[in-house]
Amino acid sequence: MNLIITENYEEMSKVAAMQMLSWINKGYKRRVNIAITSGSTPVRMYEILQGFLEMIQVKGVHYYNFDEIPVKDQKGITFNALDNAFFTPCHINKEQIELFTENNYLNYDEKISNDGGLDMMMIGLGGDGHFCGNLSGTLDGFGEGCRAVNNHINKTIEARISSLVGGNENMTEFYVTFGPRSVMNVKNLILIVSGDKKAKILKQVLEGPIDERVPGSILQLHPNLTVIADKESSKLLSKNE
Amino acid sequence: MNLIITENYEEMSKVAAMQMLSWINKGYKRRVNIAITSGSTPVRMYEILQGFLEMIQVKGVHYYNFDEIPVKDQKGITFNALDNAFFTPCHINKEQIELFTENNYLNYDEKISNDGGLDMMMIGLGGDGHFCGNLSGTLDGFGEGCRAVNNHINKTIEARISSLVGGNENMTEFYVTFGPRSVMNVKNLILIVSGDKKAKILKQVLEGPIDERVPGSILQLHPNLTVIADKESSKLLSKNE
Amino acid sequence: MNLIITENYEEMSKVAAMQMLSWINKGYKRRVNIAITSGSTPVRMYEILQGFLEMIQVKGVHYYNFDEIPVKDQKGITFNALDNAFFTPCHINKEQIELFTENNYLNYDEKISNDGGLDMMMIGLGGDGHFCGNLSGTLDGFGEGCRAVNNHINKTIEARISSLVGGNENMTEFYVTFGPRSVMNVKNLILIVSGDKKAKILKQVLEGPIDERVPGSILQLHPNLTVIADKESSKLLSKNE
Amino acid sequence: MNLIITENYEEMSKVAAMQMLSWINKGYKRRVNIAITSGSTPVRMYEILQGFLEMIQVKGVHYYNFDEIPVKDQKGITFNALDNAFFTPCHINKEQIELFTENNYLNYDEKISNDGGLDMMMIGLGGDGHFCGNLSGTLDGFGEGCRAVNNHINKTIEARISSLVGGNENMTEFYVTFGPRSVMNVKNLILIVSGDKKAKILKQVLEGPIDERVPGSILQLHPNLTVIADKESSKLLSKNE
Repeated sequence: MNLIITENYEEMSKVAAMQMLSWINKGYKRRVNIAITSGSTPVRMYEILQGFLEMIQVKGVHYYNFDEIPVKDQKGITFNALDNAFFTPCHINKEQIELFTENNYLNYDEKISNDGGLDMMMIGLGGDGHFCGNLSGTLDGFGEGCRAVNNHINKTIEARISSLVGGNENMTEFYVTFGPRSVMNVKNLILIVSGDKKAKILKQVLEGPIDERVPGSILQLHPNLTVIADKESSKLLSKNE
Repeated sequence: MNLIITENYEEMSKVAAMQMLSWINKGYKRRVNIAITSGSTPVRMYEILQGFLEMIQVKGVHYYNFDEIPVKDQKGITFNALDNAFFTPCHINKEQIELFTENNYLNYDEKISNDGGLDMMMIGLGGDGHFCGNLSGTLDGFGEGCRAVNNHINKTIEARISSLVGGNENMTEFYVTFGPRSVMNVKNLILIVSGDKKAKILKQVLEGPIDERVPGSILQLHPNLTVIADKESSKLLSKNE
Repeated sequence: MNLIITENYEEMSKVAAMQMLSWINKGYKRRVNIAITSGSTPVRMYEILQGFLEMIQVKGVHYYNFDEIPVKDQKGITFNALDNAFFTPCHINKEQIELFTENNYLNYDEKISNDGGLDMMMIGLGGDGHFCGNLSGTLDGFGEGCRAVNNHINKTIEARISSLVGGNENMTEFYVTFGPRSVMNVKNLILIVSGDKKAKILKQVLEGPIDERVPGSILQLHPNLTVIADKESSKLLSKNE
Repeated sequence: MNLIITENYEEMSKVAAMQMLSWINKGYKRRVNIAITSGSTPVRMYEILQGFLEMIQVKGVHYYNFDEIPVKDQKGITFNALDNAFFTPCHINKEQIELFTENNYLNYDEKISNDGGLDMMMIGLGGDGHFCGNLSGTLDGFGEGCRAVNNHINKTIEARISSLVGGNENMTEFYVTFGPRSVMNVKNLILIVSGDKKAKILKQVLEGPIDERVPGSILQLHPNLTVIADKESSKLLSKNE
């Protein structure tokens, strides 16, 4: 694991943007497959990238989302967020956006493999230790690839999804996510974490036992994991110097 | 996973030797750290390497063993086997051999990290699904690094160790092995498998659930795993075409 | 050759900055050696990098200058320019700056080799086809490494140096530069070019005969050359589509 | 330059074979393009490879020849030699052999570029300092790519070709070769040299001025050149320790 501790959220965002740019840059020479995250942690990173990429087109880069929460009669939550934060402001061509949805998740691991595999995936960390849509309580071991999770699997998740989609009337039966196997298969994983309130779970994820109730703990076993964490979120780590 | 199916044991041995040579070859330019396996599967591979390497010295390569079964008043089982099959016939310099033993296992993950990490590890597969010394029944999850296993942890293991060291009178308290975390940390993993009698366990390991009772199942999650298996051992795999 | 044609100078500067960041980024994991250019072409690139790097320290990166024009009793022209445009505003640590000067040029190729070689060098293109300090009229073939050039080798060069250092009274006997051999030895070369007035010489350099009177023409033979040129400077290239 | 000095011809052949195997091995994962040499220097290397590769098929590898001397009404000299030494005994599939001939040389640089470029080229060194078919006296600078050379360009070459094809009655008008530009474009170059009688020219090529009358001297400028030379051929090199 490569742990990069930054002074604060702003520096974390810059370092993450620098990582993104270094992968995007390879797209001048060859196809590069990158899976990116929505959520609050990368907000500032996307702002920085907008400034950088607004006039730049790098044709070799393909972007993937890694989860999707469908909303009745509307665009999915994840795609909508990525579209607003990144695809539209950075003028990413449609042919370079690879949508992962409730309609294609069943064969998506195979599709990724046929595309040449994912070169890089940037993910955030949930308060319950989840990565992608692998919330605590939804895993049975770490063997699954791309998968559907029933929105009603338990009350916590039901409430969470309901709130995300704007009420039960907008909920569908399930959401989809890359499973642990899909994520472990990525060649380079980058985890971005910020803030005091993530300090405890980050310690559990990186230094605690590997346990499906803390889904992110499996990431400890990835040989090319880079963690970019600000001082507040990393303050409990034993490696924090 | 990159699965290479060979016609038979001889071809498996050649492909494995070719993999070894391609890593050794990098040692003309930089330090390369390789962990190698003893046991019966690689016997023919080492014979092929002897023919190749007898007059060649590649200074950048450092060799590591990944487990050791100490024997009272004698050299350890693993070191002895590697010495006979590889180090001595190939004239490997002592400075290029990194011994992992019952005396240094506690800080060995840190040592490897300080050495720059392991570039490649070649391992075999045990009949019970074990890799390195991680026998079924010795794991509590997949989080441990380099570790000691009590020789008396259960009757099966006691009998196995006793037989390996030539009787209870030669047994020590514990043997040592790289744990799952140490192995997952390796940049490139190569698993060699041969023969009909490994077919069932290979299927479990590569296509079954990830379960500590089948220790090798965790290797499914490694992003740079190459499996070299002959036809007989791979005949039950669904990907076997 | 990898030719990236940008809309204008601003985009050229962003793409060049992205290339810089992708190399700097590797410095979180290992030592990275980068040689950088002063002059007018990279001005905007350094401004962009300032915005990005002001709070970021990447310890593995070492920066090299590749030429120096000494000035009597003052700092050299190149170091001074790089210091103002990059080292000081980006808070680069002194230990990460490798100065190439009139005092150490004789053994500098060996020093670079001992440092592990240069990973990347970004250079501009002179109106006479020069790269680094290899002005037209100063080369005898393409075989030289780091070298001194007599300031009085001809009237053109004398006048040029005199103007750069602020008059004859500030001139020393010679300036120093990486020679063609030193530059060809770099693992990845990036050439940045902008503006209408470079169009003719860029065509000569990239598509004309390899001739020491057009020093940059040797760069055609480098297997990892990336050219970032705006539309105006690339308009005469036959590959310009 | 990476200089590997071997004890003798046998060791040179083994080290060269090891280099070949390390590139062939990559062909299990992706397309790999390798240009190979005929002539007397690699004879033993091909024998070693035969022993290794006779039962192994690596589908991703494509083999290229880099020169050809046509013979009236017969197969070309180079193809014939490679076929006997390597393609036939190693059972290389026809689809993996890319023939460079008098009929396709005009667009061959473009073809190579479309194929993804050459990953590795192994070449020998002629007594006059030639590489590929770039004999002394046939070059006008180092700018040419794949090209034809008139068999009657001078008496020496005429006699040489005549002897190779078995008499003037078998000669055609020209032979074809990769030019200096094509060779410099290769990502990794390997030069194999053996024997006392090559000592003088090897010194000129690696340490003398870059001069088209010693065609191989341009190779000094390649950033990824590996030279495998036995003690006898390298005895005059200043770097020979």
